[in-house]
Amino acid sequence: MKQSSLIIGRQPLVEAIRSGRAIDKILLQRNTAGEAIVEIRQLARENNIPVQVVPVEKLNSLTRANHQGVLAFAGLVQYLDLQQVIDHVVAQGQTPLFVMLDGVTDVRNIGAIARTALCCGAQALIIPDKGTGALNEEAMKSSAGALERINICRVNSLLKAVDSLHLNGIQVFTSEMKATKKVFDLPLSEPCCIVMGSEDKGVQPYIHKAADLHFSIPMAGDFDSLNVSVAAGIILYEAIKHRLGTSQ
Amino acid sequence: MKQSSLIIGRQPLVEAIRSGRAIDKILLQRNTAGEAIVEIRQLARENNIPVQVVPVEKLNSLTRANHQGVLAFAGLVQYLDLQQVIDHVVAQGQTPLFVMLDGVTDVRNIGAIARTALCCGAQALIIPDKGTGALNEEAMKSSAGALERINICRVNSLLKAVDSLHLNGIQVFTSEMKATKKVFDLPLSEPCCIVMGSEDKGVQPYIHKAADLHFSIPMAGDFDSLNVSVAAGIILYEAIKHRLGTSQ
Repeated sequence: MKQSSLIIGRQPLVEAIRSGRAIDKILLQRNTAGEAIVEIRQLARENNIPVQVVPVEKLNSLTRANHQGVLAFAGLVQYLDLQQVIDHVVAQGQTPLFVMLDGVTDVRNIGAIARTALCCGAQALIIPDKGTGALNEEAMKSSAGALERINICRVNSLLKAVDSLHLNGIQVFTSEMKATKKVFDLPLSEPCCIVMGSEDKGVQPYIHKAADLHFSIPMAGDFDSLNVSVAAGIILYEAIKHRLGTSQ
Repeated sequence: MKQSSLIIGRQPLVEAIRSGRAIDKILLQRNTAGEAIVEIRQLARENNIPVQVVPVEKLNSLTRANHQGVLAFAGLVQYLDLQQVIDHVVAQGQTPLFVMLDGVTDVRNIGAIARTALCCGAQALIIPDKGTGALNEEAMKSSAGALERINICRVNSLLKAVDSLHLNGIQVFTSEMKATKKVFDLPLSEPCCIVMGSEDKGVQPYIHKAADLHFSIPMAGDFDSLNVSVAAGIILYEAIKHRLGTSQ
């Protein structure tokens, strides 16, 4: 398994970003300045890399090397551009089936969802650059290798991502406990993206509102609390049934 | 949340078992003897409680009290007799839908399966007394309370449990990657029990052989490695669809 690694210092970080290497997060020392810092901030913006400003003690606790006020965590996965992934999927003659994670923080759930997504023929995961669980070793392990095989698009705004999906004719579906439409009634054979919300709060209201269809999963009684990776599994299973033509 | 607790000493343990209290496991000091020990071993056999013989140092590391060579872990859940659960379910006019866990050791998966089972109207989990993950605090938490609400039958032989299910007209289904019958083709509206195997080895051969039907879950490509709790979710979801009359 690949190990997460540190990128230490200003120039190494600039070069790493420019070379297209995936970066999970940049830590910048508070009150640090200089031309390279301005450049790093700009590259971070352009590449959707989260930047966190921290006291120097935080940087010192992570490395004894001369960090020059700058540290970054190299990513275990390579992030791809959403539009490029859409173009690639369509060019391959496939019908887009994407999964958007809105606030899923448990890395084991993220891993399990990636695994199911790959099993069910989904081509990409869309994750926000903040408020999501890290794609770290534990997530990799839970994904049984799927996180290294599925396309992962990291975006700085899920709402903008929904707009991009719409512009490309991809519908967005989210679950809602009270929805009368059931998951098996969704037009899952069409280009679509499923949004999975956080375990405690669900999908954020503005994403929920921007979605094209809301659906519920049938439940037996008064207990209706599925684990998010199990719920994703059920929806993606319906999608593969629809796409293989086995669903009525 | 309830805490797991220790039962210390010979007479307290005998009384705890006699009063019907759930016991997860008994630790007996190596080379210890006496009438009470004979009685404890017999009670353990009658109540399907696993007994482990350990060096005295193990017992001393768990308590400073006078343990008399005997310690037990009180269970967080109350185990029920399989036949009594079957009788109760049938008496309530329900169609049995059970889940048997064959070697599932990850407590978070056990919790997630219990949660899905309750959501989908399954009435009981059947677990072996050895080789399964503990129903501990982490399992409880992952189950979102479901482990305290669903019936749990602990049996000393899964094969005997399959016999009991058969004698009561309950069919047993297990998954097999190469099975041509798909999960949605199963007669899930009939009384049935789904067997979920361990993540690495699957269902044990003798249970697989004793099962009535084998099925596979449709997959998109060459990656077919679903997490066990996700697989259980898909099967139980099909069961509720069949039972609600929404499946074709």
